[in-house]
Amino acid sequence: MKTFAVIVAGGSGNRMGTALPKQFLELGGKPVLVHTAEAFLRAFPSIELVIVLPAAYLVKGKEILRNYFPDSSVHFTEGGSTRFHSVQQGLQKVKGPAIVFIHDAVRCVVSSSLIQRCYTQAMLKGSAIPAVAVKDSIRMVTEDKTDVVDREMLRAIQTPQTFHSDIILPSFQQEYDPAFTDEATVVEKFGQKIALIEGEETNIKVTYPIDLIVAAKILENRSII
Amino acid sequence: MKTFAVIVAGGSGNRMGTALPKQFLELGGKPVLVHTAEAFLRAFPSIELVIVLPAAYLVKGKEILRNYFPDSSVHFTEGGSTRFHSVQQGLQKVKGPAIVFIHDAVRCVVSSSLIQRCYTQAMLKGSAIPAVAVKDSIRMVTEDKTDVVDREMLRAIQTPQTFHSDIILPSFQQEYDPAFTDEATVVEKFGQKIALIEGEETNIKVTYPIDLIVAAKILENRSII
Repeated sequence: MKTFAVIVAGGSGNRMGTALPKQFLELGGKPVLVHTAEAFLRAFPSIELVIVLPAAYLVKGKEILRNYFPDSSVHFTEGGSTRFHSVQQGLQKVKGPAIVFIHDAVRCVVSSSLIQRCYTQAMLKGSAIPAVAVKDSIRMVTEDKTDVVDREMLRAIQTPQTFHSDIILPSFQQEYDPAFTDEATVVEKFGQKIALIEGEETNIKVTYPIDLIVAAKILENRSII
Repeated sequence: MKTFAVIVAGGSGNRMGTALPKQFLELGGKPVLVHTAEAFLRAFPSIELVIVLPAAYLVKGKEILRNYFPDSSVHFTEGGSTRFHSVQQGLQKVKGPAIVFIHDAVRCVVSSSLIQRCYTQAMLKGSAIPAVAVKDSIRMVTEDKTDVVDREMLRAIQTPQTFHSDIILPSFQQEYDPAFTDEATVVEKFGQKIALIEGEETNIKVTYPIDLIVAAKILENRSII
């Protein structure tokens, strides 16, 4: 089965306090986005990458990725005004039948084994949404009080959210709904069930400066850097 | 008003993969537990510390803390079989009226300003439970499906959970209930309302080896080490 990875690099990096968007920051000598792309290429060497970038960073993104991956199939497209619209743009490059990974560019230390497990489950069940246990005690805030939530019942959702093209492509033909917080919610609104899969504690998002240090340590422990 | 900090160091460190419990691991040249104690002593120099330790580590804990804080008032007590029982032991050292902080020993980079804010709110409202926004997308797993939870309504709970002694002492006279996941749940079961307060992203728990690296970086950014 063909594979596509739609890598969404929408952010412009405000929380980092840097001028450069997070996906271009250096991690172990390479831009964050390059690590992300490498994880997918290691899992599936002939995967087609679709990089979704803000308009202002398309040229820079192309330059970097073509430099690192001259022989790989890499498409580029401009992001939209929301996550939904950015993914919708990226999906235009996908030709099914295929397994489609939709991934946050800033989850740059995702392991190739998680990507492969997502593929296998998406082949079997149509989808694979990585999720991990919630470590903190959680309360739900309602009007004038807060209630403890049984944390055993909660899962924190990660990416790559992975789908068969027969499911994800028609789902993204729907009209936009502000309730679309991720791809799983889009697919569910379209009437399809989604299937969770065990994610990884280390599959962190690089959002704050400290996350880059953590990401470097995770790679170091894996001897990738 | 008098202040007490009950610092609960129950863990024996399995997840760290070290022989030494997490509260004794070195962070910037000092044991984790010393950093925790210092945060409270900086916030309230005349605070009385109550250190709850596993029986096997009482001698070591006393030695370390008396070495670092020879002039401070530090009590020691042996932990129980659950968090509830450990806190119950610690509270026996508390003589009200006082504001009582109940804190995880492994939240060793809590700021003195959060501790002071908790004090102020507990004086006004009887309690202060630090809580932060939840960053991940969260789903609730029910029998055969999962539902998106509106993350805006969720809060991740931290410590120090802070109370007026008139509330916390009688609450811990109750019989144990397995639903007691933290001190706030104990107080609520006793029929008292609890009041959340904004916590801190950096108020992390040192649970995994990588957390020690993150904790060191947080301290470095604050120029404490």
